[in-house]
Amino acid sequence: MKLNRRSTLAALAGLTFTPTIPSLVRAQEQASVPPAPPAGADPIAMLVYPGMTALDLIGPYHFLASMPGAHVDLVTIGSDLSPVPSDLGLAIQPTATFETCPEDLALLFVPGGTMGTLAAARDPAVIEFLRDRGPRAGYVTSVCTGSLVLGAAGLLRGKKATSHWIVRDLLTQFEAVPTQARVVRDGNVITGAGVPAGLDFGASLVAEMRGTLDAEAVLLVSEYDPDPPFPGRSPETARPEVVDLLEQGLAPFVEQARMLRLAA
Amino acid sequence: MKLNRRSTLAALAGLTFTPTIPSLVRAQEQASVPPAPPAGADPIAMLVYPGMTALDLIGPYHFLASMPGAHVDLVTIGSDLSPVPSDLGLAIQPTATFETCPEDLALLFVPGGTMGTLAAARDPAVIEFLRDRGPRAGYVTSVCTGSLVLGAAGLLRGKKATSHWIVRDLLTQFEAVPTQARVVRDGNVITGAGVPAGLDFGASLVAEMRGTLDAEAVLLVSEYDPDPPFPGRSPETARPEVVDLLEQGLAPFVEQARMLRLAA
Repeated sequence: MKLNRRSTLAALAGLTFTPTIPSLVRAQEQASVPPAPPAGADPIAMLVYPGMTALDLIGPYHFLASMPGAHVDLVTIGSDLSPVPSDLGLAIQPTATFETCPEDLALLFVPGGTMGTLAAARDPAVIEFLRDRGPRAGYVTSVCTGSLVLGAAGLLRGKKATSHWIVRDLLTQFEAVPTQARVVRDGNVITGAGVPAGLDFGASLVAEMRGTLDAEAVLLVSEYDPDPPFPGRSPETARPEVVDLLEQGLAPFVEQARMLRLAA
Repeated sequence: MKLNRRSTLAALAGLTFTPTIPSLVRAQEQASVPPAPPAGADPIAMLVYPGMTALDLIGPYHFLASMPGAHVDLVTIGSDLSPVPSDLGLAIQPTATFETCPEDLALLFVPGGTMGTLAAARDPAVIEFLRDRGPRAGYVTSVCTGSLVLGAAGLLRGKKATSHWIVRDLLTQFEAVPTQARVVRDGNVITGAGVPAGLDFGASLVAEMRGTLDAEAVLLVSEYDPDPPFPGRSPETARPEVVDLLEQGLAPFVEQARMLRLAA
């Protein structure tokens, strides 16, 4: 196996950045229809919705958008391309709507969050969009509680899937099989665990879609060599009092998530 | 030491999200002066500039904005609060300008990138801003090549600091002491290595500013338990042919970075 020079250089996407991009973005913002993906590129759609967790989106985005031959659209609900606020406030500008998003996607992705995610899972327009694009997509994917939205749309039926630890078991509500792992694959359905699992998920998808060598190059150019400063990253390794307090704090969210069902 | 309930619950910031936020954000967008930080909050300023790497910003943002009593501003160059495009395209909306950014910061942060980062390091307005806020800030910080910008502003003189592996040694150009570690601390100067090191950096800062227990709670609610799917995350562990190819691909950036000097 030989390293693909074109691919690896494409991974250094930052190098192609020029100061002309801001004006391009503004032009795009003003246009009613965003530019179509270049011919031959793999169209990827990542849902952006109010209250999503920004890191759930940006972790995978970093690796997927670095991938040679990928064209990523950030797809918003509604017709307005205004920046969409995430749960902590930071707002990200969408590039497409449900109407302008390519129809046949290489990959469909849903990020997680808390209350905003429940609102997305209950939104008929979101469900309709996912039911239209999902069955035709090469990969159907999520990170964190984004799997609740995929589940409500019926895209996890009979599939092994994961989610944030606090709601993983609720995936049975959507006839999915809750599975504890950082990244879970069942056929073309790939789901990641809580928030920064999106980095492991994104790197796995680059390997899946382009091969191991491209994934290694993307990991090295990103210097992805994690070293968390503290233990307590999963309910199994955290101090019991920290787990208890988070379970109490997240109870209102879990209570509402428990009422989600497969959408009609 | 007792777990601080208020702090831990604040870490679950997503729970406070309500659908009123989008309209608030739009109102803020239209206002000429963004709202001031709430009384008693620690003001944090994170620089956003065209061509930054979005994950360099969002990794630390995720942890810092989750931190109880923190108020984070995303500070842009110029007077226009339009979304700022990152190196891979995704655009983030700033919340403040150099004029409206609080003067006495708890923390000042600069993300990295490639060509856009060099442009920032050469921009007299950026240097002036950093020289004004830096010496008064509680912590002066960066992730990835953001340390080149801090360096050009003279904020790393005599300090141990790190950067992306491809340019770490160039920190000597700014009279800094290049240091190989995921997160490097020298006095109140804290720098992180390449891109996703921002997560380790952000978690370290929560511990530094609020204590270990809050950091553990933030790590658990984020399920930060990384598991990269492939080796090759650092030049020491990657296959030599991958390192060689990235060094070739990044050579134009390194060549220009080599010409950066302490700004006049």
